[in-house]
Amino acid sequence: MSCYIGIDIGGTNIKIAAVTATGRVRARGVIETAAGEGAARAFRRIHDAARHLRGTESVAAVGIGCAGLVDNQGGILRSSPNLPAWRGAALRKIARRHFAVPVTVENDATSAAYGEAFVRGHRGRDLVFITLGTGVGGGIVAGGRVVRGVLGFGGEIGHMTVDPEGPPCRCGARGCLEAYAGSYAIVRSARSLLGQRSRGPLASGPLTARRVLDAARTGDPVAREAARIAGEHLGVAIAIVLNVLNPSAVVIGGGLAGGYDVLEPHVRRTARRHAFRETLAAGRIERSRLGNDAAVVGAAMLARECITREGRGGKARGA
Amino acid sequence: MSCYIGIDIGGTNIKIAAVTATGRVRARGVIETAAGEGAARAFRRIHDAARHLRGTESVAAVGIGCAGLVDNQGGILRSSPNLPAWRGAALRKIARRHFAVPVTVENDATSAAYGEAFVRGHRGRDLVFITLGTGVGGGIVAGGRVVRGVLGFGGEIGHMTVDPEGPPCRCGARGCLEAYAGSYAIVRSARSLLGQRSRGPLASGPLTARRVLDAARTGDPVAREAARIAGEHLGVAIAIVLNVLNPSAVVIGGGLAGGYDVLEPHVRRTARRHAFRETLAAGRIERSRLGNDAAVVGAAMLARECITREGRGGKARGA
Repeated sequence: MSCYIGIDIGGTNIKIAAVTATGRVRARGVIETAAGEGAARAFRRIHDAARHLRGTESVAAVGIGCAGLVDNQGGILRSSPNLPAWRGAALRKIARRHFAVPVTVENDATSAAYGEAFVRGHRGRDLVFITLGTGVGGGIVAGGRVVRGVLGFGGEIGHMTVDPEGPPCRCGARGCLEAYAGSYAIVRSARSLLGQRSRGPLASGPLTARRVLDAARTGDPVAREAARIAGEHLGVAIAIVLNVLNPSAVVIGGGLAGGYDVLEPHVRRTARRHAFRETLAAGRIERSRLGNDAAVVGAAMLARECITREGRGGKARGA
Repeated sequence: MSCYIGIDIGGTNIKIAAVTATGRVRARGVIETAAGEGAARAFRRIHDAARHLRGTESVAAVGIGCAGLVDNQGGILRSSPNLPAWRGAALRKIARRHFAVPVTVENDATSAAYGEAFVRGHRGRDLVFITLGTGVGGGIVAGGRVVRGVLGFGGEIGHMTVDPEGPPCRCGARGCLEAYAGSYAIVRSARSLLGQRSRGPLASGPLTARRVLDAARTGDPVAREAARIAGEHLGVAIAIVLNVLNPSAVVIGGGLAGGYDVLEPHVRRTARRHAFRETLAAGRIERSRLGNDAAVVGAAMLARECITREGRGGKARGA
């Protein structure tokens, strides 16, 4: 029996999983991302962890999903705000040195999109994945294939303009989805709505997006308004991807996905207003099925897909 | 020698071309779309025209690009506002009866996108095509493959929301790109800006989008303002597709493309404001290279691609 190793590299920690050919996680582990430690040293620890996870199974291929801008063809991490010490790291080359099997390298959100697509089978052939967290990220699968674009920016859902006159975004533009629905934006709008108010659940303690969404669930009017703003703009973005890409699923994941129930009525109302009846009916808006496993499963299954294609005489990228 | 027949079916006329395997048009013809005539009778005329166009060459495959919602797998035209008598027509089956070779069926704008991608070679692997006309349509090529979505709506760029509070669109929603940049929308905004004004180039005669853009070119202030509104919203839409799909080209075609020079400064200024520096630099915004041939060339090359894939043991759709 052989397995696939999926590796999800983020700024805080690195998730590693041994995944079957059918996308089932047999074992998973997490190690911390050490500040300042480069990719080469980190991969020693990753390889150690993977050895324990795979047990007696051989490894058929390794898939890496990494935060940041990835050169998929070269297997290189071009840049990553959360992994400054990894800039320019030749991830495929480094990983191959340890694992001695084909290695694929993708963006983490793109990997997660592929994971969610894979577990849905035929219904995942056209899928848009949106991660809600500090920022808003995403990945696209069209006709069963991940959409990378020419530089690897494909799927940057968070930086779709949803209102040209909207508030400033971290990226420097105005009115991006992230500037409404990223956790920093939810905190910003709650804070501005809160003004000088000295009562209510949000009046004291550090304000987090999770706290805002929790307070909205219990009916706090300021929090509900902040949730409405985030939800409506998320609905506009979803309407756009429904009409332009006509997916069968729009999947919501990421650290803030637990608060999606609060945003959902606003998302649905707005998407209904802006999407075609047909594309809305065809594209189910739903929560992530894989949760924290999405990127490791997707990365592993992209590695599997790569060696399968190679076996069929297709262009090999991992070898 | 063999050739590919490309057929571009619109509400006004049907373009037919004999295309080489390298995408060069060897001969082209146009016949009128007869009101009320169904697909079966029209294909007798199409077949006659194609026989003259191909000359002594044999036909390797036939590609159809048709206005409306196409079921690519079934080879059926599901619905088409401009071809009411063709609703539900089994285009592949009808065409095969006449031509007795593999036939592919796609949406016309998707075919045009593929044509523009094909002639660009490697630089066309990720491309977004936008048709400016009465409505605004489009097609997407990602990683060398057309994006259809689950129902065939993939590429409906005209119905991206570019301002959630914007004017009503023909589709029933608000603030779609088409509601700003479709020719009816350009006329609508010029008319509303014109108000009671009784002088200037637009004050008399029927108002058309072409006339508005021509008047803008000569400096008429009302026309320039209408062009600014259309151009800026087209720029927002282009910024969105640049960030979400990261194409190497955004190609402008369609009947109103001749007036794109007037929109262009507004498009570029706005795209610069809303897209990443990198995705903007990577995605050249340019005019169609194939003009009226885009859909026939694209349809023919999609047919070619289909039989090539078939020959390699891939899934055959045209046979």
